[in-house]
Amino acid sequence: MDIKQTAKQAKAASIQLAAVGGETKNEALQKVARALEKEKAVIASANKLDLEKAAKEYLAAPLLKRLRFDEEKIREAVDGLNSLVGLADPVGVTLSAMELDKGLELFKVSCPIGVAGIVFESRPDALVQISSLCLKSGNAVLMKGGSEAANTNRILADIITRETLAAGIPDGWLTLLEARSDVTEMLAMDDHIDLIIPRGSNEFVRYIMENTNIPVLGHADGICHVYIDKQADIDMAIRITMDSKTQYVAVCNAVETLLVHKDMAETILPKFKDALTKKGVEIRGCERSARLIDVKSADDEDWRTEYLDLVLSIKVVDSLKDAVDHINRYGSRHTDVIVTADRDRGIRFMDYVDSANVFINCSSRFSDGFRYGLGAEVGISTSKIHARGPVGLEGMVIYKWRLIGNGNIVADYSGKDAKAFTHRPLQKNFKP
Amino acid sequence: MDIKQTAKQAKAASIQLAAVGGETKNEALQKVARALEKEKAVIASANKLDLEKAAKEYLAAPLLKRLRFDEEKIREAVDGLNSLVGLADPVGVTLSAMELDKGLELFKVSCPIGVAGIVFESRPDALVQISSLCLKSGNAVLMKGGSEAANTNRILADIITRETLAAGIPDGWLTLLEARSDVTEMLAMDDHIDLIIPRGSNEFVRYIMENTNIPVLGHADGICHVYIDKQADIDMAIRITMDSKTQYVAVCNAVETLLVHKDMAETILPKFKDALTKKGVEIRGCERSARLIDVKSADDEDWRTEYLDLVLSIKVVDSLKDAVDHINRYGSRHTDVIVTADRDRGIRFMDYVDSANVFINCSSRFSDGFRYGLGAEVGISTSKIHARGPVGLEGMVIYKWRLIGNGNIVADYSGKDAKAFTHRPLQKNFKP
Repeated sequence: MDIKQTAKQAKAASIQLAAVGGETKNEALQKVARALEKEKAVIASANKLDLEKAAKEYLAAPLLKRLRFDEEKIREAVDGLNSLVGLADPVGVTLSAMELDKGLELFKVSCPIGVAGIVFESRPDALVQISSLCLKSGNAVLMKGGSEAANTNRILADIITRETLAAGIPDGWLTLLEARSDVTEMLAMDDHIDLIIPRGSNEFVRYIMENTNIPVLGHADGICHVYIDKQADIDMAIRITMDSKTQYVAVCNAVETLLVHKDMAETILPKFKDALTKKGVEIRGCERSARLIDVKSADDEDWRTEYLDLVLSIKVVDSLKDAVDHINRYGSRHTDVIVTADRDRGIRFMDYVDSANVFINCSSRFSDGFRYGLGAEVGISTSKIHARGPVGLEGMVIYKWRLIGNGNIVADYSGKDAKAFTHRPLQKNFKP
Repeated sequence: MDIKQTAKQAKAASIQLAAVGGETKNEALQKVARALEKEKAVIASANKLDLEKAAKEYLAAPLLKRLRFDEEKIREAVDGLNSLVGLADPVGVTLSAMELDKGLELFKVSCPIGVAGIVFESRPDALVQISSLCLKSGNAVLMKGGSEAANTNRILADIITRETLAAGIPDGWLTLLEARSDVTEMLAMDDHIDLIIPRGSNEFVRYIMENTNIPVLGHADGICHVYIDKQADIDMAIRITMDSKTQYVAVCNAVETLLVHKDMAETILPKFKDALTKKGVEIRGCERSARLIDVKSADDEDWRTEYLDLVLSIKVVDSLKDAVDHINRYGSRHTDVIVTADRDRGIRFMDYVDSANVFINCSSRFSDGFRYGLGAEVGISTSKIHARGPVGLEGMVIYKWRLIGNGNIVADYSGKDAKAFTHRPLQKNFKP
């Protein structure tokens, strides 16, 4: 079957899946969880094949680490599935209800988006996580994983397909694509795919975003900032910055640039220099910071760089406004933090920084679906519409307007003797 | 100033505008309303220039009608502005609030999207309507209107700019673009424009959608269906179909194809033939309908055509499923109606038809922001994300995640002695 056929089938399955009840979807998720648990040895040995091949091809250590899907990872995946079962069904929720006129009732009811195209690099856990989120939210999926993980992905997709079909989920709702050319074709199929979710490196996501007309949910880079305001607790400022930079360095919500108000620079920069150096962080500083501490000099390129490494750029700014302007100019609208003792200035920072996540006095690393209590995360979006920041199940649904009448026509509400609409909000849910 | 500069300025203004309070925005809208009222003679005479030029160039009558912006249209625009003032500010609404841990509180708060690029054909009322919706929702706008309406658009944009600036709205929030080449440039500026809203013909909107990476809010065609189920009240079926087809023929929510269950065809088709012929509607029928009534024959092309005229295609189908499949295949996911005496079958239709608006027993013409009680409408969206169907102010906002802590870092919630998150929903709004 060629990919167009596959996509058509996914579209057809998505129409069926949209009407499948929450219990059936939960049963399917539980079956998958049990099967992963039961077949963990088989999965681990498929993963071993991938790991051996990757080692032979001298894959970099971080990639090897991401590729690993051992018993611990399987247990995490199973835990994820079980906690997903516990979440409310995001489909069929009445978002608003209004009487337009007596006997003419309008309901705005949540429903799945349709078909999601998932493109991800090596991590096999992404396959389980995202496909299960799609299932719970009633969306069909076409998935393309990295070729390094081919064996692992195949057995995972087989198990998920087999178990969900056995639970009554429509055939064709999930397909694993394996050819590299499939991605290019997917990106062109705006007739059949409603949303693309890319998971992988900066360049990878950017490539996807630039080569499709289909809406993309995700983020390319995460150039996050911590700004130390003119009145800030010094210990807190250092604590938050160190956590934001070093708690986990290779992630999108780690900080890349530290902005320091000029009034704080002289006191705080030497302390930063000490703390960062102790943790092995290389500092690149603007001219003004270079006058206060011994640092490599930073240029415009540094403000635009997501290091994802033990490197931090530092800039001294004259005002809150300058900090905000810098962030809005160089940032990637992901996560930005102000450390301040003045709540009003904190709120101003939040109001004017145009980012998905704006924080006062806490680490940028909190920007995450699990920490936000969303229960599960499809990814983090830096787009300006639909869903922003960490995206949970809610980001995977949209709504239909359901209007139920009894022969009502618009002519009665038009012209000279027009009936008036009542537009009376209703306190009831849509009931099939 | 070139368009890149203009767009940058709009972006900068949008950052300011996002923080402007509801009262200031309302005052600005009221000032605009008063000025339009006061200067109606000047506006009407600018419009007269456009109309005269258009008449000289033999513009088609419907275009001339759309171009007209006389005192009645001005009064409607003023009414629209005043009712917009009465609506709640969509910005700054707390959508959810959660304690992550004691003293670490997360708020999901609505905010404007940023900069909207509006491209519209002749209608000058669209300029007033959409720019005011953008203002109320805190978005900056770049607008490009049709050249036929150049004089009218210019004076309207001048008045709106002057009055809103006087009320304290940031300079640069609205720009009227006049060169045709500006549109092409706009569509490429995904750095500065967050959303494109096209208003105009099918081809026009399709062109916009196919030539930009910026999200587009709107619809190209409206191929809407009425399906007469096997048990339906005949009078109601005719009443609803006639209203859906003829109440206003040149609009996206008018019906283009009538589907009739085979059990109803023999009884109802002759009655349709009578009613439609009386209203001057040309019928194009499938083979099976041609056996029952005298009609032109319809082909595959008809099922894909938005006539926007007194033409209706008719197809006899074997089942509810066939009706749904036809709609999902040929429709444009806009508005589709079932007429049925069996509510369960009606709900099934609603569940399986993948359209923004799905109706039981009422006219497709109800699919409209005013009739839905949204108060105002940016347009109707057939996209599958962000906003679907008639889009009011809510569709013009997104949200920021605002997290307020007191020195919290992620390291404390990780590893062996990790603190647990409380994830306790809060019953409070975000307060600056």
